[in-house]
Amino acid sequence: MRFECPVPSRTRELVTLGHGGGGKLTHRLVTELFLPAFDNDALRELHDGAVVPAPRGDRLALTTDSFVVSPPFFRGGDIGSLAVHGTVNDLAMCGARPLFLALSLILEEGFPLSDLSRVLRSVSESSRAARVQVVTGDTKVVERGKGDGIFITTTGIGEIVPGIEISPRRVSAGDSVLVSGSIAEHGISILSLRDGLSFDTELASDTASLWPLVESVLACAGDRVHALRDATRGGVASVLNEIARSARVGIRIEGERVPVREEVRGACEVLGLDPLYVANEGKCVAFVAAGCGDEVLRTMRRSALGRDARVIGEVVDDHPGVVRLSTGFGGSRVLDMLSGEQLPRIC
Amino acid sequence: MRFECPVPSRTRELVTLGHGGGGKLTHRLVTELFLPAFDNDALRELHDGAVVPAPRGDRLALTTDSFVVSPPFFRGGDIGSLAVHGTVNDLAMCGARPLFLALSLILEEGFPLSDLSRVLRSVSESSRAARVQVVTGDTKVVERGKGDGIFITTTGIGEIVPGIEISPRRVSAGDSVLVSGSIAEHGISILSLRDGLSFDTELASDTASLWPLVESVLACAGDRVHALRDATRGGVASVLNEIARSARVGIRIEGERVPVREEVRGACEVLGLDPLYVANEGKCVAFVAAGCGDEVLRTMRRSALGRDARVIGEVVDDHPGVVRLSTGFGGSRVLDMLSGEQLPRIC
Repeated sequence: MRFECPVPSRTRELVTLGHGGGGKLTHRLVTELFLPAFDNDALRELHDGAVVPAPRGDRLALTTDSFVVSPPFFRGGDIGSLAVHGTVNDLAMCGARPLFLALSLILEEGFPLSDLSRVLRSVSESSRAARVQVVTGDTKVVERGKGDGIFITTTGIGEIVPGIEISPRRVSAGDSVLVSGSIAEHGISILSLRDGLSFDTELASDTASLWPLVESVLACAGDRVHALRDATRGGVASVLNEIARSARVGIRIEGERVPVREEVRGACEVLGLDPLYVANEGKCVAFVAAGCGDEVLRTMRRSALGRDARVIGEVVDDHPGVVRLSTGFGGSRVLDMLSGEQLPRIC
Repeated sequence: MRFECPVPSRTRELVTLGHGGGGKLTHRLVTELFLPAFDNDALRELHDGAVVPAPRGDRLALTTDSFVVSPPFFRGGDIGSLAVHGTVNDLAMCGARPLFLALSLILEEGFPLSDLSRVLRSVSESSRAARVQVVTGDTKVVERGKGDGIFITTTGIGEIVPGIEISPRRVSAGDSVLVSGSIAEHGISILSLRDGLSFDTELASDTASLWPLVESVLACAGDRVHALRDATRGGVASVLNEIARSARVGIRIEGERVPVREEVRGACEVLGLDPLYVANEGKCVAFVAAGCGDEVLRTMRRSALGRDARVIGEVVDDHPGVVRLSTGFGGSRVLDMLSGEQLPRIC
């Protein structure tokens, strides 16, 4: 069954402060937009919270993220699908099967109800595709000029696959470092829509749920998967630095092995950006035990999202806390953590 | 042990876009402000999500709320304690013991780091008092003029007390309706701080965790507690209307029994507000089976937050979906759901 969000009767209808007031308009918003979008037993109760069956297993994963991406609609997705995928992916990075989502909106007075409907349809479709249920939510409205259209906070619960132990602390010398596909597509796609940037691209955001890929990797390598991280804000370089610091190991990356599509490379050159620092929304970095890198690589490549996966480096005993990038011709340089903000409001 | 949030070295230091960029500044924010505030095993992993032990019992409660209260600091609390209490209370209203919180911030560029530190200290103290752990979080920063200082989204997980079945569907004719204390204090306290309102009050917000009170009520009345709702946005009147509609029952309220402090009544008269529609942040409405109203009342009154609890009415067969208010002298009127927005950004 395909969900159709009812189009508001007047397409130019706008969000008002009353939609966040807890009265009749809030009630209408819930019953006319939210319930049809996310119909399920827990939500239908219209309670202050959702009551859900406790997941199996003895460990839960819990994750939350606010999404403030600007603009909210872009090639390949929108703030709604981004929020679902971002949260589902954070659960997957804990080795957890995503189960339930909570959805909280902060709307700016004057945001078109038709745009809200479009975002909710996107949340509905992407959560159904990712097999998670949106079971509870909240909506607040702020005055014009005190917000920016729509902000979304999604929180997810997942059940951790038994026997899996994903933690930066388990990363150690000899581990292979893989990336699940070509990088920097989300960031470049968003940037191409920003005012004042003079480049045109057909490039779409890579926003997608990584759970199917992660599930197959865990099935293949089990507890030999030491750490997983999706390379969002700050890109692959930030993820590598975080892991190097947490695990107190060195990481050596072969720059030439990192998959970057020609179009992305071109755009990065024009903009003066290093693709290693540009955000992804459907790519992860995996640290797996010595000797199983190739096996995990083959598994990733069989997954729809992992066809361009590569082994890009390894964990070393030298230079703990530091990531070094081999630049070809025998040279190498430190790949540092980003100092400031490269691309504001990318997610 | 009392937590002391380190005061940022330069007290005039402001939030910049870089604090939300995922690089060095984000890392500093996490390690210097968040980790000291909410130190626990799950958070210390600095993973994309938290791994927590699965709660006992076969049912979980999940709830989420965004907080956009203006101003963020007020007598009796601030946006931080409000967020913790609001979420903990929504869990309590499901009959769930609060366990874990996820905390997501949307900051406006230029928000003072000292104010952020103050909010985090408040979240830390109120969550510790409520015995919930903040196990995961996120921070985004938006440009000046695209937000309003600080917005907080908290999501909570709780374990539902075995044998408890709280649902509007269980409300039926004969049920007693109780309110746990005097109403409208949060709303009036916030309003007194708004520009252009010419009244002065010593009144503080009633923001507080209702779980201890709810726990004692559940221990006393068990599954004879049919529904619980905290009377936040839209006040007691909105809660009553929501239940009347969900349960398809009539509700009769004795206006004179509703506890309203003299100071609140005076302020409401000046402002032209009906206290029944004004927000509370530490008061709940309880629907309990016929015959156990007095027992629950005595239990509530033994709790610190329930000293002014009252039985305010009952559920009736007549006028399903409608709340009627007895106004004294034998008269009565419909107590409708609020049409628009009475008090924007009250929570």
